[in-house]
Amino acid sequence: MRMAMVGLGKMGGNMVRRLRRGGVEVVGYDRAAEVVAQLAKDEGMIAATSVEDAVAKLSGPRIVWLMLPSGDPTEQQIRALAPLLSKGDIIVDGGNSNYHDSQRRGAWLAEQGIGFMDSGTSGGIWGLENGYCLMVGATPEVAQTMTPILQALAPAPDRGWAHVGPVGSGHFTKMIHNGIEYGMMQSFAEGLELLRGKQEFALDLAQITELWRHSSVVRSWLLDLTAEALQHDQNLDSVAPYVPDSGEGRWTVVEAIDQGVAAPVLTLALQMRFTSQDETGYGYRLLSTMRNAFGGHAVKHTNG
Amino acid sequence: MRMAMVGLGKMGGNMVRRLRRGGVEVVGYDRAAEVVAQLAKDEGMIAATSVEDAVAKLSGPRIVWLMLPSGDPTEQQIRALAPLLSKGDIIVDGGNSNYHDSQRRGAWLAEQGIGFMDSGTSGGIWGLENGYCLMVGATPEVAQTMTPILQALAPAPDRGWAHVGPVGSGHFTKMIHNGIEYGMMQSFAEGLELLRGKQEFALDLAQITELWRHSSVVRSWLLDLTAEALQHDQNLDSVAPYVPDSGEGRWTVVEAIDQGVAAPVLTLALQMRFTSQDETGYGYRLLSTMRNAFGGHAVKHTNG
Repeated sequence: MRMAMVGLGKMGGNMVRRLRRGGVEVVGYDRAAEVVAQLAKDEGMIAATSVEDAVAKLSGPRIVWLMLPSGDPTEQQIRALAPLLSKGDIIVDGGNSNYHDSQRRGAWLAEQGIGFMDSGTSGGIWGLENGYCLMVGATPEVAQTMTPILQALAPAPDRGWAHVGPVGSGHFTKMIHNGIEYGMMQSFAEGLELLRGKQEFALDLAQITELWRHSSVVRSWLLDLTAEALQHDQNLDSVAPYVPDSGEGRWTVVEAIDQGVAAPVLTLALQMRFTSQDETGYGYRLLSTMRNAFGGHAVKHTNG
Repeated sequence: MRMAMVGLGKMGGNMVRRLRRGGVEVVGYDRAAEVVAQLAKDEGMIAATSVEDAVAKLSGPRIVWLMLPSGDPTEQQIRALAPLLSKGDIIVDGGNSNYHDSQRRGAWLAEQGIGFMDSGTSGGIWGLENGYCLMVGATPEVAQTMTPILQALAPAPDRGWAHVGPVGSGHFTKMIHNGIEYGMMQSFAEGLELLRGKQEFALDLAQITELWRHSSVVRSWLLDLTAEALQHDQNLDSVAPYVPDSGEGRWTVVEAIDQGVAAPVLTLALQMRFTSQDETGYGYRLLSTMRNAFGGHAVKHTNG
């Protein structure tokens, strides 16, 4: 089995490594030539000098897996790639694209007879070792063609991956997965902050998170990672209280609005990240100003 | 090592079984005589006919572990038990007591020279097989005396239990654990409801939760249990949309208010349970009435 991987960053590069270990021939391309050279040297990846070159090194059905930032980079690459492919070839988007985009792209490619698979890919930097959790949307035919590749990437051939539904449903499922992740993370963060806030007990958060890993109801991979991090440092002085968010959390909340289905905790978990990102605190300044205006309450002033 | 267990319900009974398998001699008492007889027969538990009888069958330092409903039953039992004990004896409250009560009871017993340990006990009906996750608050001396018993109850002698701090801190830690659990559960519930709500994809929630168990970021014991339940039935038609809450979720939210620390997701997860419990929907009726009053919007009427 041979395929091309376009985008050899943290995710794509490790996926090539895992595919190679699973016996899949991979033609790899990235804008960074040194990354291509390294993977060719270390993993026996077939180096390509361009996307055109990568496609030329495949034979039908040609499979091109994209691991690119969502939005414009993925859109541009699919637009550029389609004319190079023929009927029966397959493009896979393994990035975190919005599922509406995947549905639109899948339909556009289908008009040209080109197959499309959207693969929500979880596992991050741990995927190489543990395998990737793959949620894929595609027609039954495309999913069947892709099965050996999915089995090589997954934790095991028979688990951690699934063809969940039609084109778009893979990225949809991954989006919801990430929305849930936001809520779980916020739950742990709030609880651990309360543990730490109870100063009279002087609790050791590393001890407690480690203890919870065994037979507690909250045991989870997120807890494993948190316990490990707190083992090294529980003051977190070097970490700024600023939490970025990528698209998936936002899209989950928009989806809840589109469906008219309540998802208050997932919404709030996202909005707490926005609060962390707001360095001006303008809303809080307004609140303090209002308290002063109607009640004469003292305003705490900035030091500037 | 010998101890008494008072309260042989789902938790206490299984803890006796696990203690017996760990080689601990247990004197057991419960108001339900048939439960006492059964455990005596099956597990070699020493049957007691009353709490007085249980205490009489111990020798110093006498250890009495209570597994009773929190609130009055635990309070009454500790009040009744103290006069039967002497200096150096130990009462353990393994139930879900409010940590303020445990602090008060610990101080009251300490005045009489009686040791007290509050043990937050997680693991539910799975504890017998997997071991219990135990978060204990006590003086160093009491914790040391109790160590062999804790090691027998825990998943292994060296993990899943810890002496986290002074009296009260065990129940405090368990309370926060349960608060986090509320947030995690609500996160999964909201996400899975959105998956189900996307009817055009006709997603199989049993397939997706099973798939997520392997290498995804949301993998967790709660997910394991949810996947297992959905395997049998994902319509849940026989389950009423009514979620009870026990004390711990509420106390966590009160604690956040006492500390002045934001815990919005844990708070909202609790309040969503309140919403599920509200069968009158009076607030929603008011909202519908207001919409009608200012905008003439149609009111949906009850069928009654």
